[in-house]
Amino acid sequence: MLKLQVSGKAILSTVRCRRQARVSGKAILSTMSTSSSFVFGPYKIDPREVFYATPLSYAMVNLRPLLPGHVLVCPRRLVPRFTDLTADETSDLWLTAQKVGSRIETFHKASSLTLAIQDGPQAGQSVPHVHIHVLPRKGGDFEKNDEIYGAIDEKEKELKQKLDLDKDRVDRSIEEMADEASQYRSLFDC
Amino acid sequence: MLKLQVSGKAILSTVRCRRQARVSGKAILSTMSTSSSFVFGPYKIDPREVFYATPLSYAMVNLRPLLPGHVLVCPRRLVPRFTDLTADETSDLWLTAQKVGSRIETFHKASSLTLAIQDGPQAGQSVPHVHIHVLPRKGGDFEKNDEIYGAIDEKEKELKQKLDLDKDRVDRSIEEMADEASQYRSLFDC
Repeated sequence: MLKLQVSGKAILSTVRCRRQARVSGKAILSTMSTSSSFVFGPYKIDPREVFYATPLSYAMVNLRPLLPGHVLVCPRRLVPRFTDLTADETSDLWLTAQKVGSRIETFHKASSLTLAIQDGPQAGQSVPHVHIHVLPRKGGDFEKNDEIYGAIDEKEKELKQKLDLDKDRVDRSIEEMADEASQYRSLFDC
Repeated sequence: MLKLQVSGKAILSTVRCRRQARVSGKAILSTMSTSSSFVFGPYKIDPREVFYATPLSYAMVNLRPLLPGHVLVCPRRLVPRFTDLTADETSDLWLTAQKVGSRIETFHKASSLTLAIQDGPQAGQSVPHVHIHVLPRKGGDFEKNDEIYGAIDEKEKELKQKLDLDKDRVDRSIEEMADEASQYRSLFDC
């Protein structure tokens, strides 16, 4: 699997953002934790995994990302199918995905994005809550470009099993995920 | 490949829609043809292939659909990357995809949808114009659910080759595509 690559310039930029965001970052976290909790289908999401939120949508890091920066963007309301979203929710969800995708792509020095919804069980959806997979892409990140989709399907199944069984998190601890979310959070303060 | 399956009830419904839409359908076609032409990257699209349009987005049938109802939803403006769309274009594009997906899914008696953007060449995009693949899904339509994505990638390459070389259309004639578009157009008149 690929390793996270951040150049010195990117790190400096991130540090500068963090300095600027000391107060505002706290405010964002405070707003996120007081305004509501985050659900993903039948599961409650730890707010430390969430790095960006609007009144209608939220973005979270992944239990087992396929690639660096593989995140999920969801409506706050528990809605199984895409067609069940209101017009406001649909617009907000995709404006959030656009913003998140653009910044995560730049952060990871990628050059493309895969954006996909598995909308319903026959499309491979495992958790019945609309969610957009956002994956920064680079040349050669998968030997065959389309292998990423099979991998998404596999991860969907794993995610559900993990959440269902509340197993020990072998791959990623909450601390690791919270740290990643904290890095991404700073991208939205500048 | 799967065959189009339409029950008697669905056919009746379509016929009723067509009757109701005799005048309005003409108006829609007239609006589409007079308001502007449709471009897809460097290519001009025959308006007969387009079955739904707003001032910012349009939906067209596919040269070689992977499954019945595999259509593309595009912004009218030639925009290579998703992040280049304005907020209005992003909202309109996805509200169009939501509406199109819902009706095409019902028309084809499917139970799920795959919605995907290959945003940039490293994500498999072949024509540099944002386009959403919308595919109605049914249980067992692909032996392995994720094979559909590899197939999308393959079709992207074929589509570009076809458009580049302007080869004879072995799989689908313009008449066949126009007929399919006409069927779908009637779904938006009721």
